[in-house]
Amino acid sequence: MTGERPVIAVIGGTGPQGSGLALRWAAAGYTVIVGSRSRSRADATAAELSALLADVEITGLDNEAAATAANVVVLTVPWASHRATLEAIGPHLRAKILVDVTVPLVPPKVSEVHLPPEGAAALAARGLLDETVAVVSAFQNVSAQHLKDLDHAVDCDVLVCGDDAAAKEIVLRLARDAGFRAFDAGGLANAVAAESLTAVLIAINRRYKVRGAGIRLTGLPEDADKA
Amino acid sequence: MTGERPVIAVIGGTGPQGSGLALRWAAAGYTVIVGSRSRSRADATAAELSALLADVEITGLDNEAAATAANVVVLTVPWASHRATLEAIGPHLRAKILVDVTVPLVPPKVSEVHLPPEGAAALAARGLLDETVAVVSAFQNVSAQHLKDLDHAVDCDVLVCGDDAAAKEIVLRLARDAGFRAFDAGGLANAVAAESLTAVLIAINRRYKVRGAGIRLTGLPEDADKA
Repeated sequence: MTGERPVIAVIGGTGPQGSGLALRWAAAGYTVIVGSRSRSRADATAAELSALLADVEITGLDNEAAATAANVVVLTVPWASHRATLEAIGPHLRAKILVDVTVPLVPPKVSEVHLPPEGAAALAARGLLDETVAVVSAFQNVSAQHLKDLDHAVDCDVLVCGDDAAAKEIVLRLARDAGFRAFDAGGLANAVAAESLTAVLIAINRRYKVRGAGIRLTGLPEDADKA
Repeated sequence: MTGERPVIAVIGGTGPQGSGLALRWAAAGYTVIVGSRSRSRADATAAELSALLADVEITGLDNEAAATAANVVVLTVPWASHRATLEAIGPHLRAKILVDVTVPLVPPKVSEVHLPPEGAAALAARGLLDETVAVVSAFQNVSAQHLKDLDHAVDCDVLVCGDDAAAKEIVLRLARDAGFRAFDAGGLANAVAAESLTAVLIAINRRYKVRGAGIRLTGLPEDADKA
C-alpha cells in the first residue's frame, strides 16, 4: 500500500466524530466510505457529507461491506458497541489497518476514566483480531465540535500509538492530511493515555464551561510532526 | 488550613522532580521541607536548594519527620518505593493532603504505560491510606528539566485530580504559585490519564530527540486557570 493512497472506511461513520473525520479525509482527496449498521443511515450521512464538498462523492455502506472495501478501517463507535462491531467486521480486516478511535466511556459517567479489563479499548481490539491486522490507536482527543468546519483548524494534536511501525506511519500521514499535528506516541500499550485523556477533556469541558478542550504537545521543535 | 499557607513536605525530595518542586514553592514563600529516607541526603539537598535562594531556608528531614511536620505532603518517589513509602509515612498523614506525583513506570520500559492493579498510583495510594487523608494527583507531566531554572516558565499544564474538592483547590493554588497553569481534571479515577501521559511524553522525548516534552490544554479562555 506504500505510495498508494488508501481507501478509508469509517465504521460508525454516522456519528459526529466519525462523519467529521470522513469529511476531512474526503476533502483531502481520499476515497472515503461511511459505514453504519444501517445502510440507509450510512447513505444519508454520505449524501450529507458529499453535499458539503465540490466534486467529491462519499459512499455509504453497511459496516461489513465498508470494511471489506477499504484498506484502512477507522472505528468510531460507542464503547458499548466496540466488541460486537469488531466481531462483525473482524473477518474483513485481514492484513489491513484498524484505527481504533474508541474511548471506553461508560455513560452517564463520561467525565470519569473507565479502564476495561485489557487496559485500553485498542488493546481489547488487539485481542479480538487476527494477528495480521495492524491495530493503531488515534484521534480520541479530537473534539467533534469543529471537525465539519473545514476552514477551522482543530486546535488539538493527535497521539498515534501502535506496535506496527509501518501502519503507524500511514496513520500519522492520514492525520496530517486531515489537518492535524500528529505524533508517534509509542506502542499500543500507550493507547490508554490517549483514551483516558478524553474523559479528562470532558471533565475540563464541564468544569470550565467550554465545548472543545484539547491538547497540544510542547517542548518540540516547530517541524517535529513532519519528522 | 484555608487562608493560611500550608507547610509543604516533599517526600523523595532529593530527586530531580521533587527538589525542583521544593525549590519553586520555597521561592514562592512557602515553608518547605525536603524529605528523604536518609536524613543526611535530605540535609544535603535542602542546603543545596537554600543556596539558590536569598533569605530562604529549606529544611531537610527524614520522610516520616517531614510528613509529620507538614500539612501538605507531596510524594515524588519511584514507583518501586511507592507502597513502602506510603506505609512508612501513612500514620503521619491523618487529616492532611497527600499529593501523589508518582507515575507507575517499570524500568527499563519507561516509555510504555504500565497500569497497576488499582489502575493508577494515586488510586493505590488511596487504598493504602486512612480515609481522613485527602489524596490528590498532580504534577506527573512536569519535566524536571527546567524546574530549577526559576527564570524559565515550564511549558506544561498541571492536571489536578481528586475526590476532595477543598483539597483539590489547595493543590491548584500550590501549582499556580509554583508558576504553572493548573486545571481541575476531575475525580481521582482520572489520575490514570495524567500518570499514563508521562510514559507517552517519555516516548515522545525519545522519538523526537527532545528532553522536556509537555502538554498544554487548548480550547479554554485565557484566564480559565484562574477560575
